[in-house]
Parts: sequence; structure tokens; C-alpha cells
Amino acid sequence: MSPNSAKIRKVAICTGGGDAPGLNAVIRAAVLAGIGRGWEMYGIRDGYNGLMLPEQFVDGGLISLTRDKVRGITHLGGTIIGTTNRGNPFQYPVKNPDGSFTEIDRSDELMRSFAMHEIDALISVGGDGSMTIANSLAQKGLRVVGVPKTIDNDLDQTVVTFGFDTAVSFAVECLDRLHTTAASHRRVIVVEVMGRYAGWIALESGVAGSADVVLIPEIPFDLKKVSQKILERQRAGSNFSIVVVAEGAIPKGGTLSVLEKEIGRAERLGGVGEKITEELQELTGKETRLVVLGHLLRGGSPTSNDRLIALRFGAAAIRALDEGQNGIMVALDPPTVKYVPLSDATKRMKNVPLDCDTMLTARDLGVCFGD
Amino acid sequence: MSPNSAKIRKVAICTGGGDAPGLNAVIRAAVLAGIGRGWEMYGIRDGYNGLMLPEQFVDGGLISLTRDKVRGITHLGGTIIGTTNRGNPFQYPVKNPDGSFTEIDRSDELMRSFAMHEIDALISVGGDGSMTIANSLAQKGLRVVGVPKTIDNDLDQTVVTFGFDTAVSFAVECLDRLHTTAASHRRVIVVEVMGRYAGWIALESGVAGSADVVLIPEIPFDLKKVSQKILERQRAGSNFSIVVVAEGAIPKGGTLSVLEKEIGRAERLGGVGEKITEELQELTGKETRLVVLGHLLRGGSPTSNDRLIALRFGAAAIRALDEGQNGIMVALDPPTVKYVPLSDATKRMKNVPLDCDTMLTARDLGVCFGD
Amino acid sequence: MSPNSAKIRKVAICTGGGDAPGLNAVIRAAVLAGIGRGWEMYGIRDGYNGLMLPEQFVDGGLISLTRDKVRGITHLGGTIIGTTNRGNPFQYPVKNPDGSFTEIDRSDELMRSFAMHEIDALISVGGDGSMTIANSLAQKGLRVVGVPKTIDNDLDQTVVTFGFDTAVSFAVECLDRLHTTAASHRRVIVVEVMGRYAGWIALESGVAGSADVVLIPEIPFDLKKVSQKILERQRAGSNFSIVVVAEGAIPKGGTLSVLEKEIGRAERLGGVGEKITEELQELTGKETRLVVLGHLLRGGSPTSNDRLIALRFGAAAIRALDEGQNGIMVALDPPTVKYVPLSDATKRMKNVPLDCDTMLTARDLGVCFGD
Amino acid sequence: MSPNSAKIRKVAICTGGGDAPGLNAVIRAAVLAGIGRGWEMYGIRDGYNGLMLPEQFVDGGLISLTRDKVRGITHLGGTIIGTTNRGNPFQYPVKNPDGSFTEIDRSDELMRSFAMHEIDALISVGGDGSMTIANSLAQKGLRVVGVPKTIDNDLDQTVVTFGFDTAVSFAVECLDRLHTTAASHRRVIVVEVMGRYAGWIALESGVAGSADVVLIPEIPFDLKKVSQKILERQRAGSNFSIVVVAEGAIPKGGTLSVLEKEIGRAERLGGVGEKITEELQELTGKETRLVVLGHLLRGGSPTSNDRLIALRFGAAAIRALDEGQNGIMVALDPPTVKYVPLSDATKRMKNVPLDCDTMLTARDLGVCFGD
Repeated sequence: MSPNSAKIRKVAICTGGGDAPGLNAVIRAAVLAGIGRGWEMYGIRDGYNGLMLPEQFVDGGLISLTRDKVRGITHLGGTIIGTTNRGNPFQYPVKNPDGSFTEIDRSDELMRSFAMHEIDALISVGGDGSMTIANSLAQKGLRVVGVPKTIDNDLDQTVVTFGFDTAVSFAVECLDRLHTTAASHRRVIVVEVMGRYAGWIALESGVAGSADVVLIPEIPFDLKKVSQKILERQRAGSNFSIVVVAEGAIPKGGTLSVLEKEIGRAERLGGVGEKITEELQELTGKETRLVVLGHLLRGGSPTSNDRLIALRFGAAAIRALDEGQNGIMVALDPPTVKYVPLSDATKRMKNVPLDCDTMLTARDLGVCFGD
Repeated sequence: MSPNSAKIRKVAICTGGGDAPGLNAVIRAAVLAGIGRGWEMYGIRDGYNGLMLPEQFVDGGLISLTRDKVRGITHLGGTIIGTTNRGNPFQYPVKNPDGSFTEIDRSDELMRSFAMHEIDALISVGGDGSMTIANSLAQKGLRVVGVPKTIDNDLDQTVVTFGFDTAVSFAVECLDRLHTTAASHRRVIVVEVMGRYAGWIALESGVAGSADVVLIPEIPFDLKKVSQKILERQRAGSNFSIVVVAEGAIPKGGTLSVLEKEIGRAERLGGVGEKITEELQELTGKETRLVVLGHLLRGGSPTSNDRLIALRFGAAAIRALDEGQNGIMVALDPPTVKYVPLSDATKRMKNVPLDCDTMLTARDLGVCFGD
Repeated sequence: MSPNSAKIRKVAICTGGGDAPGLNAVIRAAVLAGIGRGWEMYGIRDGYNGLMLPEQFVDGGLISLTRDKVRGITHLGGTIIGTTNRGNPFQYPVKNPDGSFTEIDRSDELMRSFAMHEIDALISVGGDGSMTIANSLAQKGLRVVGVPKTIDNDLDQTVVTFGFDTAVSFAVECLDRLHTTAASHRRVIVVEVMGRYAGWIALESGVAGSADVVLIPEIPFDLKKVSQKILERQRAGSNFSIVVVAEGAIPKGGTLSVLEKEIGRAERLGGVGEKITEELQELTGKETRLVVLGHLLRGGSPTSNDRLIALRFGAAAIRALDEGQNGIMVALDPPTVKYVPLSDATKRMKNVPLDCDTMLTARDLGVCFGD
Repeated sequence: MSPNSAKIRKVAICTGGGDAPGLNAVIRAAVLAGIGRGWEMYGIRDGYNGLMLPEQFVDGGLISLTRDKVRGITHLGGTIIGTTNRGNPFQYPVKNPDGSFTEIDRSDELMRSFAMHEIDALISVGGDGSMTIANSLAQKGLRVVGVPKTIDNDLDQTVVTFGFDTAVSFAVECLDRLHTTAASHRRVIVVEVMGRYAGWIALESGVAGSADVVLIPEIPFDLKKVSQKILERQRAGSNFSIVVVAEGAIPKGGTLSVLEKEIGRAERLGGVGEKITEELQELTGKETRLVVLGHLLRGGSPTSNDRLIALRFGAAAIRALDEGQNGIMVALDPPTVKYVPLSDATKRMKNVPLDCDTMLTARDLGVCFGD
């Protein structure tokens, strides 16, 4: 135990952003590892709100996390410390009398709340937004360790994190189911998956689930190329095709009549699957149907792989604090866990490199990317 | 062996309508049971097209089904005898020069084709449409046994058939996944499932999957009642709700502004989930999201329960032929299999009786039906 | 509401016998249905011990079951009211000073405890042992409704009950996994499943899981016949075989050298799988391996089918009490639930009828029963 | 394309050792990647036997692998090119007249067979035995690329390979099921998993599946320590315990009465689970049961993770040949694939490092290793 960590007595955990399978496993491992070191462990309700709006919570917003509280939760989806997607203390939305919102900085208030509760360190579990906030709190003097969470797998500093394997597994299970229906009905089925800026879920589930076409944000697509692929398959005797689309996939400039007028920013692309479905039906003359998996990929019981990463991250966060670390994020560099500065954690997004091994595999398997 | 059946030497199997988990199990059981009696077994490609348009198939449209062909297929989705959703020989669509279609009766031609191939009996696997056709063929003199297939569970003469359990199981798995996400994000999630005329999938998956609201075609719904239920739950501390909707659910006359103008016939109701989602968001003021499971419920590997029903039906169809039966459909009357006349098979649709035991259970569990 | 039930204010639930997937669903449905009628609902810890040895439990042995306590438990294995396999109040084991046990009748004491807690009715969930006890308590004047529980499916008065489908489903999943390994390694794999007196699990999982041989208590087996089947398969090109054995399967008199000397009573048959494995390796000359599924079939999350049966039984038990029923067991007569007198519930065991439809199907599929 | 690879026209694939989920995915990716380069692809039946004993196979022992042959096989367990566990051409067992076996070197014959069939390169999929043979064939002049296969994850040169994730996932599913049964019955359940020399499956499934005790070959165990852990848990209110044991776990010298006399070599340790179960029942006085998962962990459909690794390895093997590589094994160094010399591939076994991150996590979670 380092001289620094000798002073730790109370640690709080908060989770930010959306649901991800494995959150409870992170919490369990951190709590058991902390208690094993003689520390008291707490969960902050609803992101940082438990400390900023304690009156809103029957239990005061700060939950004492004992061994009993974390028993038997590794395999449960969701999080035992409540809702996850809460606001940013540095840009806290306050409602004006006219119904509009103004963002104010409540971070000093939050720091005072940490001090008042005598919390010596924070474990912040979340995506790039949460890591940025964690970094800012570290700069204000709080001892902070981050745990990365992103189902999309788009955080640059970790090879992978929990939640991604569960999402890919379920997407593949769905692709398996859709194959027989597509074949029996001679249809094209378009499957929209999560992935606003990075195509990892689409690529990995598409390759593992034997999709014929995979459209990802990293490769602007031309639906004429996709249509050619589908018709080629038909000529070769395969009367159906499976097209996997990341929600953030973007058409090549000017090539897509339905899409071209409407698409400005990636944020508006929610309906990309629908438009692709319509256009493909027109281009191929084949019955084309859409399945949107989005919400189904966030929840559920984590795979054994995700449970393990999550447990390792939770325990590593405590170990890092115990070693006197501060302002870092734990990250996976298989087979080991490493620490990266929080300030580096969100510098770059991790896109699919077009020459990565999985892309080369996909090309070798004949997957069409619409390029 | 009955005197009648002594004459059977060749039996053909055809499958009609959409994909259903268990089709291959029916085929395997029928083939093994037939071969065990010294019969030759055949599969007709693509409904009846294999006999009417043999030139369209590399293998001539009629597949010899040997022990080898049906090995290891019980657990596979789809069907080894090809596409399922093909036309009606009594109303066969023929394209006119102007692009329109005229329906002609090609049933005599089909009967000649059966005769030419010396097929002594037909096993027709399908839904109400297929059973009606099978009955007409029986009346024209073909020896026919039907095997019921309906994922929606809406055939009146059988307590249940294969495919339904797989659909309900997967819907429940999806509901399990959506629960944690709904809770973490404080959302209302609307889940649209199959069920155009009968609410069985919605009811059973909703009850087994702990849905808060279930909307079925049998009970016209009032979204104000649904909204009240959601807001009551919120007041009691449950910040989320799961609403399961059968695709054929219908609003009470005049109560639903978004829907009222647009809905004429059940066939147009594809988008009922979308409209309900919009309206509920407005009524409750809560973030409301839609998940459409439709296509995911048709495919995939059958549950053990569906495998068993399908195998039993396939073997029972052969047994029925062997006993000299004709013009009947095999049906499940647990724990046994019975025969019902094909002419009765499609007389009535099996709707959810409002006083059935599962409905009473749902009411006792506090499920809201929007009434 | 009947005049009788008007007097009900407090209802207790107890569970007896081993673990079964669906127990929590029974509890949830009964609790919600009871609370909905204005009744107070309680769970008795550890069978009847909660009422007879209250001092052994921190919470006094009787748990108040509120809406909160039963939230989100439908899909959880185990039971929230504690250990299930506890003693019989009519033959309660008491330890003598010399370490031996004497059985005494503590049922009067138990009746007084019910009275003292002002419990008006009991819902007893369990197998034939529990139903016999429930019947005796009813005869002593307690208002009792039984809910049948048997993974083996051997209760005569109900077509099926919860837990069985989960057991068969998992057994089939295991058989699927073992098929590829058996084929790749050219082995015979013997799979022992539960079923001491009835072969339902072996039969249904064997048929749905494409086993080549199924040995059940109802058909004394001759391993020479089994060996012939395995060698026939080999000659036909299938270098592997899957043999499913119910733990209570019994060899034909005198035909099995390894077994003949050792087997007296069914209770000693725990190792039947091991002996069959040894003997088959000798008889066939093929590498033969054993997999015992026993303990894996009792636990886990219930299938949607079992959840539904369990929920329906829990709600039906309350409805029965509400209708003034007493001394009955709820039972499934698909598609409906019926009541049978507790005195009839355990009269006969439900064995596999040798001419039942599933047996005929198995024969048609070529399954060998060793006869 | 390199000058070297320009000469490749025919490539053969062989698989050695036991079954592993993902073999078919390797084959599919290699075949599609090879055909895409204009190469002819072949599978050798039954290890190298297809080339050494062609007369034993109806199809001559060498299967032409076309696009059609590898369609829809990614998710299937087993291998489409037949049995996997065949002999070593350098030490080929020949039966003597007296029934004993002599090992002879048939490698020259095998090399001639490759030449006769004009096979330009070999892809050998297998474990350390297969890699050693592949290396020897490379030294005799054959162009060879290896693909690592080990469910135990004990190959040193690759961070992980296909099959392992499927095995761990299923072991965790089983542990989940056993938890509720252990708790309901107040039992100790001992679960024996694969892992003769390395404890990876036991460690990872034990941690992800919330086992209380994990016994691995790397840490000699003392059952008194295990018993203490179980009794401590009991005192703290947890009346059950789950003990995961690798089949190759070894007791500390002299501490285990049941085991001490019998255990000489690791090979004889098949029954370690049984002995531990007996001894623990004696030491703790608690009902203790054994579940052996062994055979269940080898088969089945690969997880999406294993499918992806397998597909990447299959495609990478072809890419390596195309780049002119020879005598190498493809290996995973996440997120990328690298090449390692075949001569290094089997130098060291990959044991669990006692200070690795997953071990530290297990210690933090309170897992007992019996040390």
C-alpha cells in the first residue's frame, strides 16, 4: 500500500451515460476490492445528482455499498445505483421561467459535497463525456480514477471495454435468426445496429453473422454498389441478402436520391436504415425489410467475456487508487490492464482502420462495403 | 397397416406460407416415418411451384428426401425444401402484357402433375390458406393430410402448434433485455410483436416478460388508460414502463387522434407501434421508444418444445396416412395428437378468450390492456 | 367473491422439495393476486420450519411479501423464501442423544402456529410429498390449496407443470453440443438425466435432441440391443451415437453383467449411467464417455413456457381460495387450469405410456429403447 | 501478391486434435480467401489420413472445398472435413500380429502424397501436437502455415484462440444454473472443468461465474483451506458454496488423505473432482455434489467472439501464404494478428501467471485458491 493511499477511507462510484451490460460487475468488483482494503464504499445515485440534488432521493442520494448489496449482481443488466444518463455538473441545465434551459457550472458545489461527505476518491464509470468531466474534477483536486464504458467500442485508449461483446453477441444471434427468414422469403433484410461514429458493432457482427453487406461510418457507401452485390448473389442462386448498417453510416456525396437532400449531420441519421431499405427495394426490385436492433443491444445480462472485463476494471480501479494513482483511466491492453492519463482518454475516437485485420478478413470473405 | 394405405408408395411434402421454426423437424419426422414404412418421400420445391413450374428448378422441382437429406436438421431454422411463401394453384397469378395480374385456376394441371409423378399422398404443412387449398385438393381426389403451422397461434382446431413457443421465447428474451435499459434511461419502451388478428404472442410474452401494458386485437385500446397506468407507476417509484403491442391492435373508436383518420383495415396496421409510441410520448411527457420485433420472431432454431411438436406432427401425418386417413389435419390436444377434418380446420380463428386463464392471470398481475 | 373467501385476510406460501425453475414466478403471481384482493401475503421460510423453528431465523421465519419484494423476480431461479428441501411436520426428525433420529408428529404445533399468526389459508408448492402433507393439514382443518412442482413431470393429475420445460430445454442444448464432439471424436456419449421413476425428461429431450438411444424406467433395457443399434449406425457411416439414460432406468432381468448383482432398489441407481458407459464400451469396442446432467437441470432461469405456467398456477391458487375452494390442487389441462382434490393428487404416478404419441414418434424416428 | 505465392495453385487444410467450436469458421474463411485469389482449396479427411489411407474414404480422402461447401457453416460446431483426432505421420501406429502397436515414420509417404496431388501448401489447424508435426513437415520442404487451436488456452504464442470463449461462456452458464440449486439445497457443488496443465478455463469461468473457490494446476491446493472458506461463508449466512476445479489441479504434498496415495502423474487425474467432492463433504460436514462439465465444453456453436477469431485466423493463413510466408503460425496479439515461427509456437506452455491481472481480480473478489 502506498503512502498516498493510506489516507483513503471512503470511495464513491458514479456511472454516467447509457446502460451497458457489465456496470454491476464493475460495481461489485470495486466494492469487494475496496472493502477488502478496509475502505467504505458508496454509490452516487443517478450520475452526480445524488450529491447535487440529495433531497430528490429517499435514501439521500448516496448509497452505502456493502458486501450484501453487491451479492449476486455480476450477471444482472442495468445498474444497482440507478439511472445512468444524467447531466454534466460543469454545464448543468437549469429551466428558465420561459421553459428554455440555461447551463450553469455547479462543479464547485459538487466538490463541496464530496468534501462534506468526506469522500476521498471517485471512481467514474462512463464514456468520453464522463471521462472529460472526470478529468476536470481531477484538475479541481478530486482524486479520480476512470473506468471506460462504451458499447460502440469507440474509445481510442482501450482495445475494448465491457458491453461491446454482449452487443455483438446479441446482434449475431439476431442475424442468425434473420438468415432463415430472409432465405425462406427471398428477401433483402436490412439490419440497423448501433454505431454513430464508429462501425465496430456493424463490422464484427456482420462478419461473425455472415452478412453480405456491411455499411459503416468509416466508408461512405454507394447503394448502387450494394444493389449490384445483391443482384450478383441472386444470379449465383442466393435469393436473399443480409445488409448490416451502422446507424451512423453515410452515403457517398450525391449518389443517393432518397438521402441526399436530408442528411446534414451525423446526429440526424437515426433513420438511415429506413431510407436504405426503401432505396434498395427500388434499386433491386426485391422485397426489402428493415430490422432496427438499437435498443436491444444496450441491455441484458453481460456475456462471460464482458463480465470478466468489467470485474477486472472494477478491481483495477481500486488497485490504482491503492497505488496512489490519480487522474487516470484503466484500459485493456490484452492480456493486461494498463493506466492511461484521463487527459489522453478522450483525445481521439477509435474508428475502424480500413486496413485492420478484421477489415481484411471481411474483404476476403467477400463482404461488400458499398465502396 | 390399413388396406388403404397398402397402396401408398410415394408421398410428397409441401410447405406454404411464411417461415416458422420447426418446419425441418416436421420434414425429418415425416421422412423417417415414411421410409420406415417402405415409402418413397419427396419434397416439392417452393410450395406447389415445384410441380407446376418444374423447369424453373435445377433439380426439377421435386426432391427425393432420403435419410441422409434429413440428418441433423431438427434444430435448423428455415426449410430444406426451399422458399415457403408461394401462390395458390386455384388462384394462380399470371402477368398480363400490361403488367397487371389475372388469377387463373391451375389446380387440374397440378393434379395431373401429382398423377404423372405417381405421388399417392400429400402432406401439406401450412396455415389457414394452405389448409383451405389442401381441402380443395382433397375434394378433387388427392389423398391429403395437413399439418398446422402458425406462429401467431390463431388456428382454432389445435391447442398450439410449432413456431409459437420459439416466437414467445425470443420475445421474452428481448423484453428481459429491454427492462434494464428502460429502467436505466427512465423510458417507456413500446415493443411491437406479431399478431395480426390474435393477440397470443403479445399476451403470453407480455405476461412471461413482465410487461406493464399489453395491447391485443381482441381488446380495443384507449391510450389515455395506458398513459394513466404509466403515470401511476411513476408515482409509485417505477420510472419506466414496458408496453407490448400486437401488430393488429386497434384503438377504441375515436379515442386516438393520431390513429383515427388513418386506420381502415387491419392490413394497413403495420405501423401501429409507431403511432402508439408518438401518442404515448405526448400523453405521458416521457421519452418513449419503439422496438419492432416482427421479423426476428419468425426465424431461428426452434425451442425444444417446438421441435417436439413438429416431430410429433410430422410422424403423426404419416401415421394418419398409414391408417387410411384422408382430408384431415393433425392437431394437438395435450398430451395427445388428434385428427380434425380439413374442412373444419379453418372455419374459425382462435382469438384470445377474454376470460381465459392467462387473461385472468394477467389481470391479477396488474397488466393494463388499455380498456 | 364467495362468502367463504370474504373471511380471508392473511395467506401464507410455503415451498417444499428441491429447487425448480418457476418457484419465484408462482410466488410473484400469488402475492400480486392476493394483494389485489386486499389480502396480506406471507412466505414461510424453509418449508414449514419458519413456523416451527422461528428462533432459527433472523426475520422470525415469516416474511411479509409486498409488491416490492416480488418485483423483477419472475425470471430468477431459486426461491426468495429460502431453502426448499425441509422436513415433514408429521414425521419431524429429532436427534436423539446417541446421534440417531426419531420422527415425531409436530403437526398440532404447526396448526397452532398458523392460528397464532392468524393465517387463514396456505398455498403449498411442492411435489407428491408436499401434496400429501398439504392434504393432511387440510384434514386437520387448515384451508389449503396446492401447486404442483415436479421437474420429472411425474404427477398424474396435471398434464405438465413448471420446471419440466426448462429441464428438457437445457438437456437438449447439451445434446446439441455433444453431437459435434461425439461425431468429431467418433465416440459413444452416454448422457444421464433426471427421472427416477418416470422417463419424461429422457424421452422428450432424447427425441428433440436427436438421440439414437433412450433408456427409461418404463422399459427395462438390454444393452446388447443398444450395442447392436450403435454398430448398425457405424456400418451405415455414422461413427458416433448419443445414448440418453434416465437415472432410474433398469436393465432387463439378468442381461447386464455389470449391473445385475448390484441393483436392488431404484434408490441405489445413482450410478446407472456409469455402469452403462462401461458396459457399452466393452460391448461395442468404441470409446464411450459419460456426461451426467443431473444437477444442471434443476436450476437456472425458467423458460418463457415455465414462467407462464408458474404465473398461471400462482394466480389460480389465489383465485381458488377466493372462490372458496379448499383441499384442492391447481393443475394444467391445456389450454385451461382445473382443480383436483388433494386426495387424488398423489394417488398415481404419471409414467410414460408406451403407446403415447411421443413414444410412437420416437419409434418412427428410429430411436432405440433397448427393448 | 508476392513472387513466391504466384506459384500457389492448390492448398489443403487439415485439422488435428479434438473438437473445438470455430473449426468450420476457419475452414470457411480460408476457402473463400483462397478461392478469391484463384486457388483451389481442399480438405484432408481425418487429419492426414485422407492422404495416407485414401482407400478408407468413399470420397478418396481429399475433398474439394467450393463456395457451396462452406456456405452457412460459420456457426456450426464440429468440422465438415471429418473426425479430428488422428495420428502423427512421424509416429504412425501400426498394429502388430500380437495386437500391440509399433510406431513407424510415414512422413515421406505423406510428402509424396502431397506432391502427387500437386498441393502447393498446407494449412494445419491444431494444438501443440499438430504445430510440432507441421513444423517437421515444413522442415521436409512443405509450405506450411499453422492455425492454433486449444480450448484450454495453453498455447504461449497467442493471447487467445478460438474455442476458449465458447468453453468459458458455457461453463459460466452452468455456474449460473448451479448457484440457485446450491443455495436452495444448502449444498457445496464442485464443478470440474477442462484444463489439464493450465487453469485458464477454471479461473475465467470461476471469476465470471462468481465461484467461491477455484482450484488450478498452477496453485497446489490444500482442502483444509477450502473447507475453512466454506465454513466461513456459512458463518456469514451463505449456506452454499461453488468450487470450480480444473481437471489437472494438484493437491499440496501430503495434505490430502484421499488423494495422496493415488496421484502420480497429471495424466491420471481424471477423477480429481470426485476425490475433492468426497474429501470436502468429510471436512465440512455439508452435502457436497459433483458436476463434471468436461465433454460439454468442447462442442456447440461458437460464440460470436470465437467465430470472429476463427474467421480472422482462416483468412490470415491465406494472406500469410499469399505474402510468401512459410513455417509460421498465425497468432492473436489484440487487436491484430501476427506471425510467429512454428518452431517457437510450442516451446512453452502458457500457464496462468500468479500475478496476472485476472488473478489479482480474483483475489480482490475473495476467491479462495486453496493456498
